[in-house]
Amino acid sequence: MNYKTQREAARKGIETPEMKKAAEKEGVELKYLQEGLAAGKIALPANRNHLSLQAAAIGAGLKTKINVNLGISRDCSNMEEEMRKVEKALEMQADAIMDLSCHGKTQEFRKALLAISPAMIGTVPVYDAMGFLEKELSEITVAEFLQVVETHARDGVDFMTIHAGIRRTTLERLRKTPRLTSIVSRGGALLCTWMERNKAENPFYQYFDEVLDICREYDVTLSLGDACRPGSINDASDACQLEELITLGDLTLRAWEKDVQVIIEGPGHMPLNEIEANVLLQKKLCHSAPFYVLGPLVSDIAPGYDHITSAIGGAIAAAAGADFLCYVTPAEHLRLPSLEDMAEGIIAARIAAHAADIAKGLPGASEWDWQMSKARAELDWESMFKLAIDPEKARRYRAESSPELEDSCTMCGQSCALRNMKNL
Amino acid sequence: MNYKTQREAARKGIETPEMKKAAEKEGVELKYLQEGLAAGKIALPANRNHLSLQAAAIGAGLKTKINVNLGISRDCSNMEEEMRKVEKALEMQADAIMDLSCHGKTQEFRKALLAISPAMIGTVPVYDAMGFLEKELSEITVAEFLQVVETHARDGVDFMTIHAGIRRTTLERLRKTPRLTSIVSRGGALLCTWMERNKAENPFYQYFDEVLDICREYDVTLSLGDACRPGSINDASDACQLEELITLGDLTLRAWEKDVQVIIEGPGHMPLNEIEANVLLQKKLCHSAPFYVLGPLVSDIAPGYDHITSAIGGAIAAAAGADFLCYVTPAEHLRLPSLEDMAEGIIAARIAAHAADIAKGLPGASEWDWQMSKARAELDWESMFKLAIDPEKARRYRAESSPELEDSCTMCGQSCALRNMKNL
Repeated sequence: MNYKTQREAARKGIETPEMKKAAEKEGVELKYLQEGLAAGKIALPANRNHLSLQAAAIGAGLKTKINVNLGISRDCSNMEEEMRKVEKALEMQADAIMDLSCHGKTQEFRKALLAISPAMIGTVPVYDAMGFLEKELSEITVAEFLQVVETHARDGVDFMTIHAGIRRTTLERLRKTPRLTSIVSRGGALLCTWMERNKAENPFYQYFDEVLDICREYDVTLSLGDACRPGSINDASDACQLEELITLGDLTLRAWEKDVQVIIEGPGHMPLNEIEANVLLQKKLCHSAPFYVLGPLVSDIAPGYDHITSAIGGAIAAAAGADFLCYVTPAEHLRLPSLEDMAEGIIAARIAAHAADIAKGLPGASEWDWQMSKARAELDWESMFKLAIDPEKARRYRAESSPELEDSCTMCGQSCALRNMKNL
Repeated sequence: MNYKTQREAARKGIETPEMKKAAEKEGVELKYLQEGLAAGKIALPANRNHLSLQAAAIGAGLKTKINVNLGISRDCSNMEEEMRKVEKALEMQADAIMDLSCHGKTQEFRKALLAISPAMIGTVPVYDAMGFLEKELSEITVAEFLQVVETHARDGVDFMTIHAGIRRTTLERLRKTPRLTSIVSRGGALLCTWMERNKAENPFYQYFDEVLDICREYDVTLSLGDACRPGSINDASDACQLEELITLGDLTLRAWEKDVQVIIEGPGHMPLNEIEANVLLQKKLCHSAPFYVLGPLVSDIAPGYDHITSAIGGAIAAAAGADFLCYVTPAEHLRLPSLEDMAEGIIAARIAAHAADIAKGLPGASEWDWQMSKARAELDWESMFKLAIDPEKARRYRAESSPELEDSCTMCGQSCALRNMKNL
């Protein structure tokens, strides 16, 4: 092959099998996808060692994608249970899965996941470092960090969160303009600790070229982590967050020079009225690279319901141009999600993504709604169930409350508006 | 008393006990409230016969309010069960309850509700007409419709949905520019049927002055119903919807001439990107009268999850200026909500309202979030539970999954960012 990455292929005018697959899935012209990849507006995470992958692309003019987080950890070490989550997530149409494993047989789990997943797989190497190396964080060397990245890349991971934008200057910034919730990025906080203990620069920033070389070799898409994402609406859009975003923009250009694909991670907690401006800034400062947001959560006060606070923020962000939504479950801020939490989180994220695709005017997006509403107007319950985002729940809800009139529901009974208008 | 309605009092410069109570609750100057009432930008639904009322206001510069629907019907006739919903709704801080009873001992239920509810109470007299009069819809006379309105007013109802904006011309409009989902307003469809069967104009439009006289007498706030609200995103912002909105604007001025207070009801199903324009149009065409929205639901495909589709739309609408959100439960489009559905619907609506209040910059709105995030930064779990919108769920979620480290949670364990930053 005369290319290392999908970006390089696109820039050379080569049509790869992954581009063809992704364009077909998406219903767009291959040319459109190729140009978007070359310009960096689209990413096609497809590690050459992820053999079970059914390639899909993320970015401008494409369907909003959703990601599901899972993985084994000290508090949740049952590998079989996590693999059941994987199966369920795939069944529920997750576009991507991030394996956040940080303790136990992380490589075994990662390999098992990559062996079966047609969805793209992401990881956060810094999470895995301590578990994989079985060392205290501050004792991990730069070479060892890079070794973990290389191991993940060789295993076939399609995209990796690398918190290269947080630096020693960030620690000064935090002292100058203090935050209510400091750093809430797990990887970001680990790197702060490492930097402070070792009195050294963030290794992923300092040795960014080495990271790029690994990514280029396997075609790992860099997901530049937002270590400084606001953890409370109070901290949103502050200097700390924006200084990091500027750095991520600089790093994007460096990655593109080596033809490494990039997506940019984003907030976080954020008042509803600041979301659109944040998407605009990300697109401007990061040269239109795809935007991957965690939320944003539009309020801090709803633990147990953060799938809702983030569905609100995610829908607005994606309608404004964000391309990729990380799901948030009802367990956020409280515990690791159960299988049921995961399912609720996926549905909420899919609703947000779909609502945004309608708002963006994505061709065909509202066709699903049209079919559903046609079935509603015809009181065709069987079609409504089949078209529902969760057919099982829709069916169960109706079955639990039988209406007097078979074609209506117990909400309005004989006063059903659609029924009355139909009979007019 | 030398005034009939709160609006009349405000225009005469009178400070009523209800204004004082509402201003105090809201933390605004009485003068501000009074001027808003006089201008019609604020409504203070307070029927002089609703003796248990703790008055609250709706409108510009005030907290976004939420309404809960319930009531007895043919398919759900258990009065005790509905009264349990009332108690739960009040406990969960519903600002208003609409009693949509349409079958059985509707007056008995309404009176029981009004006797105990400190929250404002709304009804839809046309729902009750058939049940109360025990007659076929088309046989109900104009005088009888007005009699039902008068009965509700005398009983103490604070606001009433009156579908006065739908007219015979609407039926022509529906033939000229057909919709996917016709009319989905229950009251609207009933009135269409009545108009067609009797070959007569909508009695609430034709005899609007008589309705106003009743409202003025008891100080019932008119909630002008949007019979033509879109029932699918396909039908949003169409001629049918906007013609009715223009009529509602005309009727608003007629109501204000008699010092009757007005709020305007709004959609419905609506693509996310059309919501802001719709709020703007409502405010313009209806002379800044408070806006009361049902949703909007940003997609049609999520029966079982319409508390989420409407939380997305409601938050955006309220941030853009809508003042009052009607809750939507997971049961929407499927059945009457259970107690659990109601609770989920209330939480989702409260999240949307609160997120919007933050976005609007309402003084004090983000204080709650600040307190929560402060507790988070301090890993003060007890305070987090107390501040949570649903303390019971937050507590239960965490209890079900004990972390290895007591101050962290199972999501991140020893890698908890806030814990690590605190220890830095």
